[in-house]
Parts: sequence; C-alpha cells; structure tokens
Amino acid sequence: MRFSARGHEVSVVDNFARRRWHQNNGTDSLTPIRSLDERIDAWREVSGHELRSFVGGIEDGDFLEQVVVDTKPQAIIHYGEQPSAPYSMANREQAVETQYTNVIGNLNLLFAMRDHVPGAHLVKLGTMGEYGTPNIDIEEGYIEIEHKGRKDTLPFPKLPGSLYHCSKVHDSTNIHFACRIWGLRATDLNQGVVYGIETEETAQDERLATRFDYDEVFGTVLNRFCVQAVIGRPLTVYGTGGQTRGFLNVRDTINCVELAVGSPADAGEFRVYNQFTEQFNVAQLAELVKEAAGHLDYEVGIENIENPRVEMEEHYYNATHTKLLDLGLDPSMLGEELVESMLHEIERNKDRVIAAAIEPKTRWKPAPTAEVAS
Amino acid sequence: MRFSARGHEVSVVDNFARRRWHQNNGTDSLTPIRSLDERIDAWREVSGHELRSFVGGIEDGDFLEQVVVDTKPQAIIHYGEQPSAPYSMANREQAVETQYTNVIGNLNLLFAMRDHVPGAHLVKLGTMGEYGTPNIDIEEGYIEIEHKGRKDTLPFPKLPGSLYHCSKVHDSTNIHFACRIWGLRATDLNQGVVYGIETEETAQDERLATRFDYDEVFGTVLNRFCVQAVIGRPLTVYGTGGQTRGFLNVRDTINCVELAVGSPADAGEFRVYNQFTEQFNVAQLAELVKEAAGHLDYEVGIENIENPRVEMEEHYYNATHTKLLDLGLDPSMLGEELVESMLHEIERNKDRVIAAAIEPKTRWKPAPTAEVAS
Repeated sequence: MRFSARGHEVSVVDNFARRRWHQNNGTDSLTPIRSLDERIDAWREVSGHELRSFVGGIEDGDFLEQVVVDTKPQAIIHYGEQPSAPYSMANREQAVETQYTNVIGNLNLLFAMRDHVPGAHLVKLGTMGEYGTPNIDIEEGYIEIEHKGRKDTLPFPKLPGSLYHCSKVHDSTNIHFACRIWGLRATDLNQGVVYGIETEETAQDERLATRFDYDEVFGTVLNRFCVQAVIGRPLTVYGTGGQTRGFLNVRDTINCVELAVGSPADAGEFRVYNQFTEQFNVAQLAELVKEAAGHLDYEVGIENIENPRVEMEEHYYNATHTKLLDLGLDPSMLGEELVESMLHEIERNKDRVIAAAIEPKTRWKPAPTAEVAS
Repeated sequence: MRFSARGHEVSVVDNFARRRWHQNNGTDSLTPIRSLDERIDAWREVSGHELRSFVGGIEDGDFLEQVVVDTKPQAIIHYGEQPSAPYSMANREQAVETQYTNVIGNLNLLFAMRDHVPGAHLVKLGTMGEYGTPNIDIEEGYIEIEHKGRKDTLPFPKLPGSLYHCSKVHDSTNIHFACRIWGLRATDLNQGVVYGIETEETAQDERLATRFDYDEVFGTVLNRFCVQAVIGRPLTVYGTGGQTRGFLNVRDTINCVELAVGSPADAGEFRVYNQFTEQFNVAQLAELVKEAAGHLDYEVGIENIENPRVEMEEHYYNATHTKLLDLGLDPSMLGEELVESMLHEIERNKDRVIAAAIEPKTRWKPAPTAEVAS
C-alpha cells in the first residue's frame, strides 16, 4: 500500500500460509483480516490505485519465475517466509516446513531474478535474531576482523536462536552468494521485534487492517503484554526478563522498507541494515505496560514464568543501527502514550482475544520421551 | 569398512543418489562400483564381518527416524549429501535439489538424534570450501574476535563459493544450533580436496573399490589431471591456476574419520576440524602431474582455459589444521611417487574414461539469455 500510494505499480504474491498456520493452530489476529480481494477492493476505494495479485507458493519455482516474467519488477520486497521461532521449534515437521519454505522459496526468487531481472533490487526481511547475543557489539551485517597481523571485512558471525532464525541465516548466506557471484543487488533488513497495530495506510479503513498477533506462536512480546493487561491476566515474563532485544514500531517497519527501496544496493552488493529503533529488556517492557495500563485503571500483575526457550537471560547487548537513521528514518519512540493507544485498540477487539493461545506451550528443549530415558 | 574391521556393528544408509546423478549426467566412476549388496557380500568374504544396510532417502524423516530407532547408533557418520559444486550451479532445479537434500536430510537427522540417541556423536562431512578465501588466516571453526574493547569466540565467518558450499554452511549452522540448544555432540570435518584411489580396505578386493571421479561435475582436480595425462590430453587449468586449497589423500580421509569418532565431542559441543594435510595451488598440481607423468613417458601439456567458476585466482590462503594432527593423524604426503601410482591405476582402467565428460560445461555465471539482454 505504501508503494502504491506513492504511484508505483505494485503486485502482491500470497499463498495465504499465515492464515492456514493460524487456523491449524486455533489462533487468529486480534484485528480481523479481510480476504486479499476485499483488501484490494478497499485500497482501490481509498486510494484510487490498483494492486495486482498472484496466488501461489514461492516454493514453486516455475510459478514464481512466471510472476517475475509477467511483472518485471524493479524492486522485490520479500516478506514471504514462515516468521515464527516457536512454530519452527514445535516438531520436526514444522522445522522442515520452515526451512523448506524460507530457504527454497528465497532460492527460487534468486534464480528468477538472475534470469529475468538481474538489475532489480531485492529487499529481504531478515531478523536481528540472526546475530543472537554475542559478547561484542553487533554491527550491521559485516565486521572488520584483525587477526594475526592481517585484516578483512567479513560477514558478522551468527548465533541464531531457533530453527526459524537458522533459516534466516541460511537465506542471508544464499543472497550474499548471489550478489557476489551473479552481481545481484540486495538489502537485508535485520528487523528487531515489532510492536504496534497500525500504519499510515491501514489506519485509513478498517478493511485494510494488518495483523496483530499476540499468541505464543506468532505474537511478539509487547503485543502480548498489552493483550494480557486488557484481559486482566498477569504479564508473563519468560525467566528473569533480562533478555535484551531491539524493538520498533510497525509504522517504522514500513518507513524502513521505503527508505531501503529508495536507495538501492549497488550491483553485486549485499547491504545489511539493522532495522530497530530502541533496545529494551523484557522486564522493562512489562514495567512499561503495567505503568501505562495503570493510568487506564487496568490492574496489572507481572509473573515470571519458566522460560520455554533456551536463551541467555542476562547478557551483553549493544547493536549498531545507524544506517537507516542516516537515510532519514525518524523513529517513533516507545512510551506510555503509545502503549495506552494500543490498549485502547485492544479494548475495542477484546471479545476476539483467545486467552488460551497466550500461554507458552512450545519448548525449545522438550522433556525426553520415555523411550529416550530408558 | 574401517569401523567394521575394528569390530564395531555398522549399518549403511543409502538411496543410490550418486549413482543416479552420474547416470543422468552420462558419467561414471573410473573404478567400477559394484552394487551395495555385492560390496557387502565381498566385505563378508574378506573380513568375516556383517554390514547392515537400509535403502532410503534421508529427506524422508520418518524413514530416517526408524533407522535410528532400529540401530541406536553411538556414532553417526553423515556422508549422505549432494557433494558437487558444479552440480549445484547448473540450474535452479539442481540448486534446489542440493539444498533440499543436504539441509533437510541433515535436519531430519538432528531431530532423530535428539529424540532417540541424544548422547550419540554426529561426525559430519563438511568442507574447507565453506570458508572461501578470506584475507586472514582460516581457523578451525571458530575465531576469537576483539572488537571495541570486548572479546568473544564466535563461528568463523563463511564465504562459500557455490550453492553446494552454501548448503554446507547451512548444515553447520543447524548442527551448531542443535548442539547449543539440545545438547547434542557433533564434529564437523571441514575437508579439503580429496585425491587418490584406494584405502586400506578397498585395496583388499576389487569388488570393494570406492569411487574415483574425474569428470567436470563430480571429479576433483588432481584426479582429473591424472586422467588427462593418461589419455594424452592437456591438463586444463581453470584461469591462472593461482587458486590455493587444502588437499588430502583419500586414505587420510578415512583415518581422520576414525580419529574423530574415537574422540567424541562433549555434550553440547560442536567441534570443527579442518581436514586436510597440505596446501597447493592448481598450477603447482599441474606441474607435479606433468613431472611425474614424464617419468612414465606420458607426454603432457598444460593449458590455461577460461575459468568457468567465479573465484579469486590470486589470493591469500593460510588455513590452520592442527587438531587432527594432535589426535595422531600421520599424513600421507603428496609427491611424484603417489602420482605415479595413480597413473598406473588409471592406465588399468583407461578404456573406461569418458573423455567428453572432462571439459567444464557448468558456468558459475551463465551468459545472459536473449530475454534478459533485451
């Protein structure tokens, strides 16, 4: 919608996988999501612009190639991946599905670009979770290493924290390769944890609403805390809550994509931006939500529960994120006002909350089966 | 055969993919490879030991899980991958097949280990090609990085040189993850380029022969030069021949695997060995073969042809490889004597050489199609 509003011809490729995953999981977005056709109709009414749609899976290389041939894009924004860490950790089938969808879909795209639009700019959604929590500052994609009297600038080492995050590292490796060998141009947006409900475009009509997930599989932490506050449940902090991450408002995600597309990578360049605006730890977010919710007379408790993930709970974390600011990003900062506006929105859809979907069931390290213990 | 000879119970899993790829490609091993059943029969006759076999693909997670349940291995040696860089670069279908077979097969194995033999030791065939040719010394899997006053030991950054090599990087990432999160134990053998024809075991009976590939897709450079010398063709050096790599004799590969299995990684440890014994550049190998072949009265020319790969031809290369030596590896060094023995062996099978399969056809950077150029 952002690029369409700016007058670009935009095509959408979707296989409705996210809808299917939610359905199989018994969960749903808090905001009702209309069908793709209804959303396209609504956008035409609101903006006067036409969006073209292609329905199919990018794991089907022939289908994707045909889309690229038909549309000859100048920029491709690749959001078409399985995006949930818990989903990828639930069992072997979901782990395989995640790595298949993400790695093979992306590989098909690289071949379609090489063969049909080698000058196009790929803007790929990555994740800050590729880096993990190293004991040194995290740089934007690359690090200059001095070693035994010699120097090179090399890909920043990765310590991904789930099989989903591993799949994103694989994608980065494949895209970097395609840039180095085939001369493609790509920008990887290593995004932090997203919060918030609406963007400039979705706010124009409720039929344009984007997803607001708060469940244990697809939800993100601040969204979840806000929903817990509204339905009167304690905010469940995994472990001590000392886990620090980069965060950003969903409005900024769209601004970042627009900035990235506006300054294409050079031919052969694999550019990496760390796409977040502020660092917080989980305990700080819980306190912030408790405070803001208190102003609206919600009674909120905080509960530290056993961490279902395997991750460090107290660690060093300092990630560079200057490149998007240099391009002109003007961040929306997180504060009580923003949380209060989220709480208001959630209150409006309170009857849609599926409370049973919030508690974490997916464990990074499942208990040994009887057979293994024997 | 090595582990069986030492008295271990050994099972083999095979889906005959390498045979199928050769057949589709119109190529074959110089040494005739018997069927798996014939080889098992021959080994029983020679050694008195029984080998158990399972026929199926490791991409089938249920099949692989059942093999692990049936055999409860203490060590798993994972050689079951598509191993050719040119094969992975030929077209989209083969690139996808390579990454699917290698990444998903390995992922299925990690889940089977987690659920049924979490204490087993995975010994995985990696490749020195994961590192590429950085401008600093290559370490064994990890590097201590000092950055802005802080320090951490992190995975060595990777610059894989083909989509096959990318798939091996993906595997390393997944295995490292499984060790960190699930506490599995694994050793990655980042192997150099292999040369040579026989091992201690295969030399005992011609029915036990292992593969000797010299074609552009599955062959390795020294093997190819030796075949070219015997059939009276010039040794074809890709580009200037300044490409430096680590090399080892096929006899040493088996010794290295034995050493790795004999010293299992700790629970949670992802150990990495750089498995090669000497560094050479391609031009040096051509000179060596020319010299040795001269002693046997072969007239040998050297021809520098256009490099079908995208790679640096003049570069720094110094890779650490002390860990296997520390475990007791006693390397077979490469010299004229060894090359002469290879030439003798090739002479015996000279009538099996498929000369048309040697010239490189697979290009890393294919010429743009008419459509792209338009």
